[in-house]
Amino acid sequence: MKERLKELIDSITGPDSEAAGAAARRQAGLAKPPGSLGTLESISIQLAGITGKVINSVDHKRIIVLCADNGVIEEGVSSSPRSVTAAQAVNMTKRKTGMSSLARHFHNDVVVVDVGIADPYDCPEIVNRNIARSTRNFYKEPAMTREQVLQAIFVGVEQAEIAKREGVDVLGVGEMGIGNTSTSSAVLCCLTGLSVEQVTGRGGGLTDEAFARKKQVLSHALELHKPDPADVIDVLSKVGGLDIAAMCGVFLGAAKERIPVVIDGFISIVAALCAQRLCSLSCEYMFPSHASYEIGYMVAAKELKLEPWLLLGMRLGEGSGCPIAFEVMEAACAVMSGMASFGEESTIDDSYLEEIRKGDKFSI
Amino acid sequence: MKERLKELIDSITGPDSEAAGAAARRQAGLAKPPGSLGTLESISIQLAGITGKVINSVDHKRIIVLCADNGVIEEGVSSSPRSVTAAQAVNMTKRKTGMSSLARHFHNDVVVVDVGIADPYDCPEIVNRNIARSTRNFYKEPAMTREQVLQAIFVGVEQAEIAKREGVDVLGVGEMGIGNTSTSSAVLCCLTGLSVEQVTGRGGGLTDEAFARKKQVLSHALELHKPDPADVIDVLSKVGGLDIAAMCGVFLGAAKERIPVVIDGFISIVAALCAQRLCSLSCEYMFPSHASYEIGYMVAAKELKLEPWLLLGMRLGEGSGCPIAFEVMEAACAVMSGMASFGEESTIDDSYLEEIRKGDKFSI
Repeated sequence: MKERLKELIDSITGPDSEAAGAAARRQAGLAKPPGSLGTLESISIQLAGITGKVINSVDHKRIIVLCADNGVIEEGVSSSPRSVTAAQAVNMTKRKTGMSSLARHFHNDVVVVDVGIADPYDCPEIVNRNIARSTRNFYKEPAMTREQVLQAIFVGVEQAEIAKREGVDVLGVGEMGIGNTSTSSAVLCCLTGLSVEQVTGRGGGLTDEAFARKKQVLSHALELHKPDPADVIDVLSKVGGLDIAAMCGVFLGAAKERIPVVIDGFISIVAALCAQRLCSLSCEYMFPSHASYEIGYMVAAKELKLEPWLLLGMRLGEGSGCPIAFEVMEAACAVMSGMASFGEESTIDDSYLEEIRKGDKFSI
Repeated sequence: MKERLKELIDSITGPDSEAAGAAARRQAGLAKPPGSLGTLESISIQLAGITGKVINSVDHKRIIVLCADNGVIEEGVSSSPRSVTAAQAVNMTKRKTGMSSLARHFHNDVVVVDVGIADPYDCPEIVNRNIARSTRNFYKEPAMTREQVLQAIFVGVEQAEIAKREGVDVLGVGEMGIGNTSTSSAVLCCLTGLSVEQVTGRGGGLTDEAFARKKQVLSHALELHKPDPADVIDVLSKVGGLDIAAMCGVFLGAAKERIPVVIDGFISIVAALCAQRLCSLSCEYMFPSHASYEIGYMVAAKELKLEPWLLLGMRLGEGSGCPIAFEVMEAACAVMSGMASFGEESTIDDSYLEEIRKGDKFSI
């Protein structure tokens, strides 16, 4: 399994610099002041580097939701019961949750994967890749074995491979798992060297007492297990979650398969950071979506040098930031394919084009 | 005409608080931790207050682009020539500019209105409501008469009335006019009492010298004309533009017709602020889109108590922020109509719903 991870990482290559360069030249030739479409321009260039094509579309969109339970909730770090994980995973398949109602509206596939749900459910639409019925309580013992982390990573990789086979143009990575802001905060501490205080938030709204307890539980666990910051698998096995490990696998798999992949909120970006630490080239395939309210989100975003596109005060998780982010990517593709450019046969009046290239503006 | 403005303002009423209250109750009953969809929730409540319906859709979307020239460009405050205004207005009708290629992709109508273009063009698709072939140079004399300001406002109002008749669900307000960051900065100074230095940016990228000149021109004009900050018509006539006045009219007309209306960038938000100063209730119909790079944008946004949804580093104008903002509103409507709620006949497993209402989280 360790060998397989090494092979995976070795198989990931960087962007197609020729296509990215051609896309940058095309952007520079579009009928607008250079840079005036900001992030829409950089998205189109990044997409070209990923696909090798200058003109791209993101028609087939898919959100992969990794679901797992976390033993540490025994310590009272979440006020919701464990049963919510299974119930909400089922509800996602009915397209009635926040993320999945957005996905339905915007015509995104939703694939719900059980990588570690504790409670029983009856729902054949959920992809069963259960590795353990919850991790263990890391307040007392390591959350899981290294082998389980690797298994979870390859559950994520498999989903990226399937997406490639099925012609998916862009992926989003969501999650469902009671207690996973706790695991994410713990992992983020290890990977950044920051304190529990600096990266831990209240999740959906813990009381002062529960919030203090959450931080105390995390501090204790980090002290107890002393994860090796340079060894992501060690970190994930000691204080991580099966959802985070599998999400990390989707990011790595997307990079291997050269599929653009969108990060959702806090848990998703911590998984992305794990992928980056395992293989820095995987970042070339990642796109942000919205800024989560959790303080750890911006910590991880800075590490990944990503600036979120959307400020919507969302903190639902599930992958709920992905459907709107996909529309931003649609916009980037539409500009690249639909705008008039210099020297191109077109019906527009281009007598002004040389002028607007010179600088200044024709509006803000 | 003055009487007509008073009638318009008197006809604007506030949101339907009953519908907004019912929408807030429905939001509170959706199957998610309260508040976890952030701005998507507040958008859906605001829409209900505007339309009087709890469930809304924004299917028919339209961007109105007000185009006009500004005499002050004689002073070298913009490096682009005046001819760009007419050329680009024509190009918008061909759907080949930045905004209009986005509008085509996202199925938004585009209505281009000439309210003060200086140069001749041959394009029957442009709605001809020309009031003057450019304003005058406000470095030397008032930009226009009070009567012209009022005429321009009613060009905007007319477009909102037409949109209502044609069943438009949401409007966006864009512009095209060389020199209009200068006019917008001057107007913003008057309305806020801030200095030229505090609200003026480089537009599309002025050189240091041209930027200094722009600020000097604005300071001189404000000193020369001493617009009355309490009299928006006075401000617009002395240092404004026909585009800004007409955009202000669209905002007022949208409020009168109870149509949600999206602000684009800097010029658009200054026009929105003019509308707010004429009639504070008009704000209830406004929605932000993206944060422009121009420093004045955030000044005006704070005055209007609006927080932009999108951080995309865009500074193209035209209304280019509106198509993506419309998709955010689509998302808000999709959640409101598509999510499961308490007590509603539904196929979902709602055994967990009581639990997740209690607080905390089931993901970030």
